Amino acid sequence: MRPPMHSRSPLAPAAFPALPEIAGVTRRVARARYKEWDRCDLSYVELAPGTTVAGVFTRNVCCSSEVELGREQVQGGSARALVVNAGNSNAFTGYRGREAVEAIMAQVAEHLGCSAREVFVSSTGVIGVPLPSDKARAGVEAALTAEPCSWEALAETIGTTDTFAKGAASSAVVGDRTVQVAGVVKGSGMIAPDMATMLGYIFTDAAVAPALLQDMLARATGATFNSITVDSDTSTSDTVLLFATGKANNPELQSWDDAGADALYAAIHAVARELAHLVVRDGEGASKFIEVQVTGAVSDDSARRVALAIANSPLVKTAIAGEDANWGRVVMAVGKAGEPADRDRLAIRFGDHWVAKDGLPVDGYDEAPVAAHLKGQDIRVGADLGLGEGRATVWTCDLTHGYISINADYRS
Amino acid sequence: MRPPMHSRSPLAPAAFPALPEIAGVTRRVARARYKEWDRCDLSYVELAPGTTVAGVFTRNVCCSSEVELGREQVQGGSARALVVNAGNSNAFTGYRGREAVEAIMAQVAEHLGCSAREVFVSSTGVIGVPLPSDKARAGVEAALTAEPCSWEALAETIGTTDTFAKGAASSAVVGDRTVQVAGVVKGSGMIAPDMATMLGYIFTDAAVAPALLQDMLARATGATFNSITVDSDTSTSDTVLLFATGKANNPELQSWDDAGADALYAAIHAVARELAHLVVRDGEGASKFIEVQVTGAVSDDSARRVALAIANSPLVKTAIAGEDANWGRVVMAVGKAGEPADRDRLAIRFGDHWVAKDGLPVDGYDEAPVAAHLKGQDIRVGADLGLGEGRATVWTCDLTHGYISINADYRS
Repeated sequence: MRPPMHSRSPLAPAAFPALPEIAGVTRRVARARYKEWDRCDLSYVELAPGTTVAGVFTRNVCCSSEVELGREQVQGGSARALVVNAGNSNAFTGYRGREAVEAIMAQVAEHLGCSAREVFVSSTGVIGVPLPSDKARAGVEAALTAEPCSWEALAETIGTTDTFAKGAASSAVVGDRTVQVAGVVKGSGMIAPDMATMLGYIFTDAAVAPALLQDMLARATGATFNSITVDSDTSTSDTVLLFATGKANNPELQSWDDAGADALYAAIHAVARELAHLVVRDGEGASKFIEVQVTGAVSDDSARRVALAIANSPLVKTAIAGEDANWGRVVMAVGKAGEPADRDRLAIRFGDHWVAKDGLPVDGYDEAPVAAHLKGQDIRVGADLGLGEGRATVWTCDLTHGYISINADYRS
Repeated sequence: MRPPMHSRSPLAPAAFPALPEIAGVTRRVARARYKEWDRCDLSYVELAPGTTVAGVFTRNVCCSSEVELGREQVQGGSARALVVNAGNSNAFTGYRGREAVEAIMAQVAEHLGCSAREVFVSSTGVIGVPLPSDKARAGVEAALTAEPCSWEALAETIGTTDTFAKGAASSAVVGDRTVQVAGVVKGSGMIAPDMATMLGYIFTDAAVAPALLQDMLARATGATFNSITVDSDTSTSDTVLLFATGKANNPELQSWDDAGADALYAAIHAVARELAHLVVRDGEGASKFIEVQVTGAVSDDSARRVALAIANSPLVKTAIAGEDANWGRVVMAVGKAGEPADRDRLAIRFGDHWVAKDGLPVDGYDEAPVAAHLKGQDIRVGADLGLGEGRATVWTCDLTHGYISINADYRS
């Protein structure tokens, strides 16, 4: 039984942004009816010949066939199509799940006259049920000949329990060309017995060699998609793919030293960051968007682990839900991270207001401005460890009754 | 502001157990009035000369002065008294916090005519406020001359937001003597801005050399206090102390080879395990007691990390709160643990009912008996990784609206 539709997250932006067309990218959607619902649930994106591809995937070792295949396909470096199934994750379905993915790849490859390994497939939804091949076949068939659709329709169709469609764009000057970058993502909605899969797709018309494209995506992911957490759980299907059609006709970027590589990376990073933030803003039950910044750690990696310990702490997250300036819980989270820290050098702030320094509450601590900051929707928590130059920022949301309602109150 | 008293956990035992007297252990309690409350909040346990001591402490690097001092004191191996302050954790209070503890140690040492390092102090409650020395001094003064009290009164007095008093006992034959083991613990109640401190104290009249006693406690802790989790957060003050008065007059146990050492260890382990379970049964908002057993891992350590990943997963905990046989979330938690696992060898059970084997739902899966098991209060989740002989069991509770209410709805 599906729960009632959840209302739009209070942290959602007012509207879906205007995204630019990306030459060489054609979007279509169709109804495969993977669930008993009347909505498009199969997305198809056709990519111009010559499109290069990069991908990052979940580290969950119990990953889906889609993830296993995707990892292999990315090695080839070229892509002609993307198919996304919503409503069935095809995870934990053994060889039958893999066959279902391979059937979709073959069907699209035949239509396009390309190699099956150039057809990327993602699935999200219920686990343990092999993707029904008949529904997939009919859905793909319908999608191949459907009218092209908007970015927003694509963003809606890849979604499952998301409460709003998520997209972002940026641009960069590469040589004498302006190249576009646009992306969509589905986020952290997760209804029993579905998985909290994050699927993100970024498209650019820049021409980029696959190795550099992979490097750009991997680098951009660290400080964006890999720096968000809703509940510390990691889906078996998480996937981010980056496609470059080359239709902007810039001289193909081969290395970081090429003119425009840094600019393109900055645009990709900006899109990835915005998409990652949107996922957090649709976190289950979220009422506050939280930025956790750790400075003064012995290294950036150490800072990141401390920041994630804070961001994943149920006690920190519930305190912020309660608008409680409970810096003791932040101290606790720093201490449990297992990273170098010295209680007597530690400083904690909410917003720009330091509440503790050198292991003690600050002299004349005034809770009023801190309380005012915590009443807002965008909360910033800072911890300075006072040990070195390492720093990291991660994003999360608070932990509320809404999370419990979504994940416990409805049964499969 | 204190929240309204929480009602007794539905997982609490019917009554406080009958605990035996331990020769050489005298309990007294008093009112230090660390908070605005009318209850005893200072516990004092006097220990006979010759008592040996062992201790394990939080790994949180932002620990309290009590923990710092306790770690040093345990090296000495002897104890004459224990003081427990409830209502103020004295954590994150710098040198003033340390001075407050040293003042208590000196006061009791003067009274008993012993070394200050034989006086062990623990504190639990609000952080960031140095323990008020005047209240501590008057409280200790009152406790030193108070009438001896029951085990239950001690268990109540060390508690803060616990909803029931927690104690356990066992006995063992050592040589020709029967020795007693009794213990009390305070658990995972935690109200803003307090910390979720777990304090446990176990007493025996056996005579045990300090090195062996420490070895026994460390070994017993692994599969008991270190195998429970309520919300993955680690207090800055967690402490378990084990005192052996020697009043049973058995020949002092020096090594594991001595007759009766194994029996005494078994009794200590049984008490530690029961106390650990009681902490989980008083987990904030808990409505179900959950045992997670992992088998078939490459090692016991690996099994324990996988079991903790399952037990700490908010998605697994909310599914069980919702009585939802959501084995996909267990698969996800196994996969995210970062330990060796093979999706296609994995088997999952609830109670004694296997729901998935070899990476697939079992043939003819019948949800009825699984659903019946999940409606109970004592839930068992099993995961067999199919890789080796490693096994581990951990205990946790479910994640409910009660947890959110306790930790978010009331403000400091």
